Amino acid sequence: MHKGKAYLECLPRERTGELWQSRLIAAGYFSSLPVETLLIGQALGRVTAGCTYAKQSVPHYNGSAMDGIAVRAQDSFGAAETNPVRLTLLKNNEPFVPGSCYIVDTGDLMPAGTNSVIMIEDVHIDGNSAEIIAAATPWQHVRIIGEDIVANEMVLPEHQLVTPPDIAALLAAGLETIDVVAKPKVTVIPTGTELVARSQDLKPGAILDVNSHMLCAAVSTWGGEPVRHEIVPDNYEQIKQAVAKSLETSDMVITNAGTSAGTEDFTSRILSELGEVLVHGVAIKPGKPVVLALCNGKPVIGLPGYPVSAMLTAELFVRDVLYQRQRLPKPQLQEVPAVLARQLYSHVGVEEFVRVSVASIQGKTVAAPLSRGAGIISSLIKAQGVISVGENSPGLAAGAEVKVKLFSQQQLNTLLAVGSHDLALDILGVFLKRQTNMLLTAANVGSMGGIMAIKNGEAHIAGIHLLDDKTGEYNISFVNKYLANINWQLVRLARRDQGLMVLPGNPKNIKGLSDLIREDIAYVNRQRGSGTRMLLDYLLPKQGVACSTIDGYEKEVSTHMAVAATITAGAADTGMGIRAAAMALGLEFIPISHECYDIILNFPPGDLMADMIVSILKSPEFRQEVERLGGYDLSEAGTILAINKELGE
Amino acid sequence: MHKGKAYLECLPRERTGELWQSRLIAAGYFSSLPVETLLIGQALGRVTAGCTYAKQSVPHYNGSAMDGIAVRAQDSFGAAETNPVRLTLLKNNEPFVPGSCYIVDTGDLMPAGTNSVIMIEDVHIDGNSAEIIAAATPWQHVRIIGEDIVANEMVLPEHQLVTPPDIAALLAAGLETIDVVAKPKVTVIPTGTELVARSQDLKPGAILDVNSHMLCAAVSTWGGEPVRHEIVPDNYEQIKQAVAKSLETSDMVITNAGTSAGTEDFTSRILSELGEVLVHGVAIKPGKPVVLALCNGKPVIGLPGYPVSAMLTAELFVRDVLYQRQRLPKPQLQEVPAVLARQLYSHVGVEEFVRVSVASIQGKTVAAPLSRGAGIISSLIKAQGVISVGENSPGLAAGAEVKVKLFSQQQLNTLLAVGSHDLALDILGVFLKRQTNMLLTAANVGSMGGIMAIKNGEAHIAGIHLLDDKTGEYNISFVNKYLANINWQLVRLARRDQGLMVLPGNPKNIKGLSDLIREDIAYVNRQRGSGTRMLLDYLLPKQGVACSTIDGYEKEVSTHMAVAATITAGAADTGMGIRAAAMALGLEFIPISHECYDIILNFPPGDLMADMIVSILKSPEFRQEVERLGGYDLSEAGTILAINKELGE
Repeated sequence: MHKGKAYLECLPRERTGELWQSRLIAAGYFSSLPVETLLIGQALGRVTAGCTYAKQSVPHYNGSAMDGIAVRAQDSFGAAETNPVRLTLLKNNEPFVPGSCYIVDTGDLMPAGTNSVIMIEDVHIDGNSAEIIAAATPWQHVRIIGEDIVANEMVLPEHQLVTPPDIAALLAAGLETIDVVAKPKVTVIPTGTELVARSQDLKPGAILDVNSHMLCAAVSTWGGEPVRHEIVPDNYEQIKQAVAKSLETSDMVITNAGTSAGTEDFTSRILSELGEVLVHGVAIKPGKPVVLALCNGKPVIGLPGYPVSAMLTAELFVRDVLYQRQRLPKPQLQEVPAVLARQLYSHVGVEEFVRVSVASIQGKTVAAPLSRGAGIISSLIKAQGVISVGENSPGLAAGAEVKVKLFSQQQLNTLLAVGSHDLALDILGVFLKRQTNMLLTAANVGSMGGIMAIKNGEAHIAGIHLLDDKTGEYNISFVNKYLANINWQLVRLARRDQGLMVLPGNPKNIKGLSDLIREDIAYVNRQRGSGTRMLLDYLLPKQGVACSTIDGYEKEVSTHMAVAATITAGAADTGMGIRAAAMALGLEFIPISHECYDIILNFPPGDLMADMIVSILKSPEFRQEVERLGGYDLSEAGTILAINKELGE
Repeated sequence: MHKGKAYLECLPRERTGELWQSRLIAAGYFSSLPVETLLIGQALGRVTAGCTYAKQSVPHYNGSAMDGIAVRAQDSFGAAETNPVRLTLLKNNEPFVPGSCYIVDTGDLMPAGTNSVIMIEDVHIDGNSAEIIAAATPWQHVRIIGEDIVANEMVLPEHQLVTPPDIAALLAAGLETIDVVAKPKVTVIPTGTELVARSQDLKPGAILDVNSHMLCAAVSTWGGEPVRHEIVPDNYEQIKQAVAKSLETSDMVITNAGTSAGTEDFTSRILSELGEVLVHGVAIKPGKPVVLALCNGKPVIGLPGYPVSAMLTAELFVRDVLYQRQRLPKPQLQEVPAVLARQLYSHVGVEEFVRVSVASIQGKTVAAPLSRGAGIISSLIKAQGVISVGENSPGLAAGAEVKVKLFSQQQLNTLLAVGSHDLALDILGVFLKRQTNMLLTAANVGSMGGIMAIKNGEAHIAGIHLLDDKTGEYNISFVNKYLANINWQLVRLARRDQGLMVLPGNPKNIKGLSDLIREDIAYVNRQRGSGTRMLLDYLLPKQGVACSTIDGYEKEVSTHMAVAATITAGAADTGMGIRAAAMALGLEFIPISHECYDIILNFPPGDLMADMIVSILKSPEFRQEVERLGGYDLSEAGTILAINKELGE
């Protein structure tokens, strides 16, 4: 039967981190570091290897700090408005005699014999003499040698990032080169027979190797020098050889399986042969099958194959090691309290890391969990932060107070759009970013999900298209019914076409909903609560079609585009959605209905952002861009259809 | 007389910024940007030029999300522990028939005919058949095409920094290249006849060009591509030509004067000829003479010559323009409230920017102003933040609440040592950084200044060496007298030699303090309140020497090393200080006295940091390192001499 994975143990994350660090310390991995000598001008952002001492003083001579005349202070004593003192003006090459002075500019060497500068504004120069009307104190307006940096003084301590002013200081102190910690060289080895390097070679069942590029980029970000190994197939000897060879030239080796962690999982066995496996399996999700090993005193890390797992485990077990190896403090992610937007189930016994969108909604910081699939790359790029659900917790309730670790120190600049998906929302996002630098993040949960998100204070915007079969009107009755206590505005975005998408040429000759019961037709559906699904479920009985007779009725996807993609790939023959999605993927479109797609805006009265959105919707540039997608009528875009009557305008 | 500078006007900083931005916008500087096409793997940290759309869906096929068997869900209906269902196991190349199944690994293509995966753990495989004991729901454990990213969907919006996960998403979406905003090319032209490029060529009156390297590094940090022009002497035509030529190939030109802003200040005139000078003179300190001009629709900025002025004005008028040109949000420095450690006078009519050390002392965040000289590079490298004193403010009182803009988002990790300077403090700093990652920042204000800083809660540590001429004891009576209400500990650092430093060979044949009255001897003194000065003033009368008879008695510098440097440069014949300073600069040393250099520790009782410092002082490694400097006896280092009796132990 199936060859079970030989997890040595499944350690908690914190104990794993401690074990990992202490074993690396014991192996001497952090103690003596390779050093590189660079010209000062090339050392920006590098880490000083040792303390740096000044070779010369700054300033390196006593100089004038002003434009003026250099005098011997004693000669000026007694000068006053009523008793001007006249000094003889000497040329630079004439030797000083008491009662004389020299013209000096800022930075000029103080002529021998002088010890004070009088500002030019306070001097009356007349031919060969200068008249002053105030006494100078000794050493006034003189920059004294070493007043900034003294020769042999420490300029920069060891293990510090070199900044632009540091470069100025090092150069000024007479240094030409500086020793910096060599960047740790990290080889990333993508492994997997199913991996291909180029998307042209992609066939079903094959996986494009994207992780190695992502991990190399992460290593760069963390100060390392990444080396991307070519793809190694799932062959025991080949992987072993690749690791052994990489160890000769690298400070760290990362192997990264394909998504298959199945029967070809050699990593742990290979690393046991090449060195010692310290950990195989950590009680975290995603990322559980991570392998941490020490080979030749160097860390070798087997990261799991799914992109989200690979990135998380790299953050946990690669990043801090690289920082420590460079003698830099661990990066501290800023932690903010937030309210959890949706319930989160979690397994007891594993610590779960969930990426979240973070936004400030009506004064409340909200964390909205993103898709938790370990393979969902888009959850990595949409996330502003991550929360951890402890290993003893069965999950968190909606509204629970959570701590979010933010990936960026920037202000929270996310607008959350939760609800029905429409391509026009992406375009609204582009226009908003141009004008306000806010990022629109969309979670596609269908129209009813959008209304619930607004009700729970978890969304700024919700796109909805809900037909009230009693009134024949779209949207307004639902908003009035569910959102009594919210400061909503309902704003028209578009009228648009709904219909069936089919392959070009309509090979199955589908004419309408009544064809869906045909045995040779596979359907792809939208999820419950989506406006499209509700429209379908409203229309089917009118056509005398029972949903149970439709093949694929239970296959649910959550966007128009996903419906179109499923048909394009031949995994279904038809599905309902908007014309724009069909056009985007080159499908044919059989119109079934018109509908109104509106957005609910959840902002306090008078909020600028709501006005900004309305003005974008009304702009000809936005309307043209959306109508170009096909099947849209934006002539009413930006019309405020209703404002919550309960709360007044 | 002196040729006055023709400041067009002296605008407030905020109005200058608005004018600068609006004129750059009007000139179209931000509207159309050069674009560069890069391989995805090279785009890390670059800014997307446009929106990026997926070329293929991710996943690009329906695949198994588990290791298991692929089945048609309908065939599993009815399966239960009491009613196992047996399916025929097919090979991959055999066509599907109802009631059959295939073995699949995670990531494998779903075989035609199947629509569901049952986990291998729930299957009993026996020869050519698989037995299941639970029904599968359609599409369970199947990764549906496009569930992550759908073809033609937007992957990244325009004007966004590319992160490691973005690289994975772009590659997965079938892209190979991406258009990014070309880095703005910024030419930095150092100007000044007094400038030299190499420290070997440095003579008195000459200035090493360090600013151009600092500014180029700053441009890199801000995302630009710096080009360092060679030094151009103060020649009208040459500077004009250099600017004109640089404008042809650059997006921005920066000229940077030598420190001399005197009679050779051509920048403004040249820029008027090449384009339009918008601003000449801003009501800020430092940095007032900045010139902002538009030539050929490009910004040309004349930055003042002093390093601190150059850096500040670059931060104000270069950084944000570069970010905006790259379509990035302005970087926001984190602002924290703090208590001002010392009184700050300021001129009404100019906004003054003062760099500060920031530290948390006994629970209070303290901002300690650093040297405000526009030429003091070390103030740039020591600063953790900057405060602004408004143009209508005559200054701020000690203890005033100020807002500090922090340069780094790192935790406050500074230990402030304020007081008498000793080279051993630098070494203590190195040891502390190794063990705790805290940075020791020293402000040299003399022993009495250190006691006052502890009293006012402005220092963690104060080094003192104060002789009580009544008791003949060092330090303890002063601490008891002034620090009644503080949790201090007084800890021995070293016994050390004090004496007169002289040039090698002692050319003036100085034997002791009584020689200081000789006419041919120039003295360099320490500032009032320093232990060395107090020692001198205590010893002189005993030798029958009146201080008024000493040439140079009024020339004060604030560290031992500055005394040594002044003598090395021939600007004085002798001065009093510690043996280590003399040895560091190769001077001879005439011993005059022994003294005790102790440190006051200002930490709450039981604070770990105080214990850490004591244990470092006691360690042989630290003692050896300090004693190597010469003139030190560290046999008592780390001995706790006293703890404040008033507050108890």
